[in-house]
Amino acid sequence: MAPYYRELAIDPAAPVPSSNRTAFNSIMCDVVEETKPDVVSFHFGLPEPALLQRLKAGRFLVMSSATTAAEARWLEARGVDAVIAQGYEAGGHRGIFLSDDIATQAGTFALVPQVVDAVKVPVIAAGAITDARGIAAAFALGAAGVQMGTAYLWCPEAKISTAHRAALKSARDDGTALTNLMTGRPARGIINRLMREVGPMSDVAPEFPLAAGALAPLRAKAEAQGSGDFSPLWAGQAASLGRDMPAGQLTKAVAAEALERMRALAASKT
Amino acid sequence: MAPYYRELAIDPAAPVPSSNRTAFNSIMCDVVEETKPDVVSFHFGLPEPALLQRLKAGRFLVMSSATTAAEARWLEARGVDAVIAQGYEAGGHRGIFLSDDIATQAGTFALVPQVVDAVKVPVIAAGAITDARGIAAAFALGAAGVQMGTAYLWCPEAKISTAHRAALKSARDDGTALTNLMTGRPARGIINRLMREVGPMSDVAPEFPLAAGALAPLRAKAEAQGSGDFSPLWAGQAASLGRDMPAGQLTKAVAAEALERMRALAASKT
Repeated sequence: MAPYYRELAIDPAAPVPSSNRTAFNSIMCDVVEETKPDVVSFHFGLPEPALLQRLKAGRFLVMSSATTAAEARWLEARGVDAVIAQGYEAGGHRGIFLSDDIATQAGTFALVPQVVDAVKVPVIAAGAITDARGIAAAFALGAAGVQMGTAYLWCPEAKISTAHRAALKSARDDGTALTNLMTGRPARGIINRLMREVGPMSDVAPEFPLAAGALAPLRAKAEAQGSGDFSPLWAGQAASLGRDMPAGQLTKAVAAEALERMRALAASKT
Repeated sequence: MAPYYRELAIDPAAPVPSSNRTAFNSIMCDVVEETKPDVVSFHFGLPEPALLQRLKAGRFLVMSSATTAAEARWLEARGVDAVIAQGYEAGGHRGIFLSDDIATQAGTFALVPQVVDAVKVPVIAAGAITDARGIAAAFALGAAGVQMGTAYLWCPEAKISTAHRAALKSARDDGTALTNLMTGRPARGIINRLMREVGPMSDVAPEFPLAAGALAPLRAKAEAQGSGDFSPLWAGQAASLGRDMPAGQLTKAVAAEALERMRALAASKT
């Protein structure tokens, strides 16, 4: 990163945020027990057995992401109430935890039915679901529900940078890639200068989540100038299908449109 | 490949098949005009303008694969009658022709609606469509039809090797990868020994289609021993959803099941 530090006139000895504790721990579990959410959802596998046991004892619905049928079976065997089948198209971090081979990760269209066949718990589809077409298609593939991420980044409530919002509005089907430059783990974002020049995948990226620290001063200075050159512009491959609409309104609109789409489809093929 | 040639006791000076002419030429166009198929479908773009003109003059329906919305628009501008939106999950060769960047290729779930939005001609979905769930989902995403490849490799009519058939029957969602080792161009197949040990993607693979020649003697000897170690085991990411059924019967079965699925889905959500 040294040439970029020089270009942006940042002291390379400037303090870098220390590693965030990202693993779910007993303090976080205390907060869950106090605030009593309906659902506790994990990414990158599951917390240690004692903590999982506390959540199950508290009757919270526990979900976690699977990027393969094998991960779905692993999660089911440990007692999750639902599996989120996260396709290759999904924006942000891949939930992959039994492997680190992103070359074999399946797209939503292939993953959802194979996960549905692999487990008995409900399967929630994720990855490239941005509009009513995607919701209807996910149900057709056997999903019991959908999880939409990038669609809500379009909403005015989303606290994303100006550069990130601008990137979403000019998103293309072929404008994202998986990158480990931003945090150390593979995650999908809109291709920016850093990904184009250094990656998108690098063998020398610092371990998760330390890569984010190395970029933090560059990101802060660039974002202050309205640039997303060094920022994670998380987005899935269907980001272009989003709509600038308040979150509650969007939820009702896509749900109604998906129902209508399923009815119209059945009628047109009869 | 030298160590493999030695292991299989093959003379490295053994004749290797010379490059096949793979581009559509005027002799092939003569055959089309004589045999008068309903449809002429291309991969890797389109033939030269004079040949395309002959096909259009002959009123053949011309189709070609697009792996991005940009490729779909390029094909439409040159007069194709339909675009095949080939998602990342698809088995065999990627039809990519305006780029060589496979890191940005979109999955079927993301690609189909974005191609539908990009062109006015009908869009045929391809990639991970193996059963009725996939057909129904493709229509939900806006496709006017589907193209199924791997599903038909399961049929007794398919002239695939014993090793390829065995690999299909134990296919997994995370058991394929894109490889350029087999022909020089990226194509999706079930991971075998060669892909595991050398690739799956290599910077030194001979140019398309010459890589196939370098492997031919290894492949022939291994296949004669029932091994798929050096063979292209083409398959999409939903290969596991196939059924061992004659092709005509399969076509009727999945079509009927897809109609029933669309009706049941609409009814269940009402």
